[in-house]
Amino acid sequence: MAVTVFFAAGAALWQDYRAPLAAALERAGIDAVLSDSAPDPALVDYIVFAPGGIITDFSPFTRARAVLNLWAGVEKVVSLPGLTQPLARMVDPALTEGMVEYVTGHVLRHHLGIDAHIHGQDGVWRNDVKPPLARERPVAILGLGALGRACGQALAALNFPVMGWSRSPREVAGIACHSGADGLAEVLARAGVVVLLLPLTAETANILDAARLALLPRGAVIINPGRGALIDDAALLAALDSGRIGHATLDVFRTEPLPPGHPFWAHPRVTVTPHVAADTRTDSAAGVVAENIRRGEAGEPFLHLVDRARGY
Amino acid sequence: MAVTVFFAAGAALWQDYRAPLAAALERAGIDAVLSDSAPDPALVDYIVFAPGGIITDFSPFTRARAVLNLWAGVEKVVSLPGLTQPLARMVDPALTEGMVEYVTGHVLRHHLGIDAHIHGQDGVWRNDVKPPLARERPVAILGLGALGRACGQALAALNFPVMGWSRSPREVAGIACHSGADGLAEVLARAGVVVLLLPLTAETANILDAARLALLPRGAVIINPGRGALIDDAALLAALDSGRIGHATLDVFRTEPLPPGHPFWAHPRVTVTPHVAADTRTDSAAGVVAENIRRGEAGEPFLHLVDRARGY
Repeated sequence: MAVTVFFAAGAALWQDYRAPLAAALERAGIDAVLSDSAPDPALVDYIVFAPGGIITDFSPFTRARAVLNLWAGVEKVVSLPGLTQPLARMVDPALTEGMVEYVTGHVLRHHLGIDAHIHGQDGVWRNDVKPPLARERPVAILGLGALGRACGQALAALNFPVMGWSRSPREVAGIACHSGADGLAEVLARAGVVVLLLPLTAETANILDAARLALLPRGAVIINPGRGALIDDAALLAALDSGRIGHATLDVFRTEPLPPGHPFWAHPRVTVTPHVAADTRTDSAAGVVAENIRRGEAGEPFLHLVDRARGY
Repeated sequence: MAVTVFFAAGAALWQDYRAPLAAALERAGIDAVLSDSAPDPALVDYIVFAPGGIITDFSPFTRARAVLNLWAGVEKVVSLPGLTQPLARMVDPALTEGMVEYVTGHVLRHHLGIDAHIHGQDGVWRNDVKPPLARERPVAILGLGALGRACGQALAALNFPVMGWSRSPREVAGIACHSGADGLAEVLARAGVVVLLLPLTAETANILDAARLALLPRGAVIINPGRGALIDDAALLAALDSGRIGHATLDVFRTEPLPPGHPFWAHPRVTVTPHVAADTRTDSAAGVVAENIRRGEAGEPFLHLVDRARGY
């Protein structure tokens, strides 16, 4: 019998995903009825979801075996009413690739002082300041999920000494891993560059506050392609003004698009990038959704399940 | 008996190298007399050299077992009068690291469109243009010596499809290698980014001329940390004006410092960097010189010998 897949992620994503998802389900050998219009909730087997989607209460979906989120972040999903079904995050291999490229590119940009060259095309030959080698520039990755691990390992392959931090202890090849509050203080005290790739939870909101920013070596650089609310914006602006923080390259914000009048836009030590660090690719993400449906039908464990207690 | 090492690379380099070279010779177990003042040429065992050094004729150095150059490029050394001794280029592991960092950083900068973000801090949220993934952006490395191989492999590890070109056939893991005139045309026709790491010889001077620039896909980017004279400057400027070439990031020039009035400084599609791509580190380079002296004394083959017929 065909499985009923309800695409409840909104009309815009339906346009993008309809054909790739149908193709991916067929490749996975799933006989599926795929629809974006609300069927009888009691007949739905799988819900494909995104925050801002069309379901306000999950309790009528009594038969649904899983809710499959199209984004990596689930902080706006975990608290939705009636959500008792297993929830899977998106871990898209193409998204990981894009994130590694963004993080590696911006770490190297700051490491090499590329901005000074771009701004210094005035005929003055300034070759007296040479950057240190990567092996002399410690990088801290906060968050050791799929994205943090991949970024840390790419940077380690380029000789950067990479420290990783996560709330609970982890081991990742090539990364000096730390955890807990003491571990975070230790990592920050030695970091030339800090990359934020933590999930947003009650524990990680404002994790880079004034006290923790004050632990960083003078001139350290912050790169945030994770979640805007991981940083206390006012504390960051103060640390940039004082020179404690040398530069911040920010891809995510509490409000997006970042309002034109926000001080980040005008600050000479801030580079705003418009949430481009990593983009889910529909073909690749549709394959991940189809694989999870195949697993559900075969009685195998789902990939990328969210731990409700931790919130990610 | 102590070996006589004549440091003939000039007073400025003597300041930098005196202590590191003495330390490296001691670590290598060499009993050496190291001096920058001209001893009896007939008593010199090894000459440490750099272009612009104080020797104008090598023929009186009848006992010298090798000339050890402090730079990777030897185009100004190979033709010096009386040079019949074995000549070794500098292949400094720290220089290779720095080059990999420069090349990877600037390839990612252009790949990610970072300049547009740096120049676009005006409050306008432009997130409609997403870059392709690295695996969709072919990179050509011209020159597959130690530097070209290391850069190509670092880019391949970041998923860029890397094509390599050298005059004579080579095989390098992870790089699709081409050679000869037909191979060069094939590589250029598919390159989104071209990195120049060829030695400068009669055959490679102006290798990127108007005809070869015209083979590149529209909007291709050129990165030159190799030698300035590999490119026909006038042809490059014309190709930049027409939009055929999207951007050129140039670290080396026919005349250095690049004169303030040179059109490269003012061109909106050119980034001049002041010969900072890769810097020899004295500690690391002194170790390479000492290792070659150790080899000479032990009757082992020298590292990094220059082939006089090829000129590198």
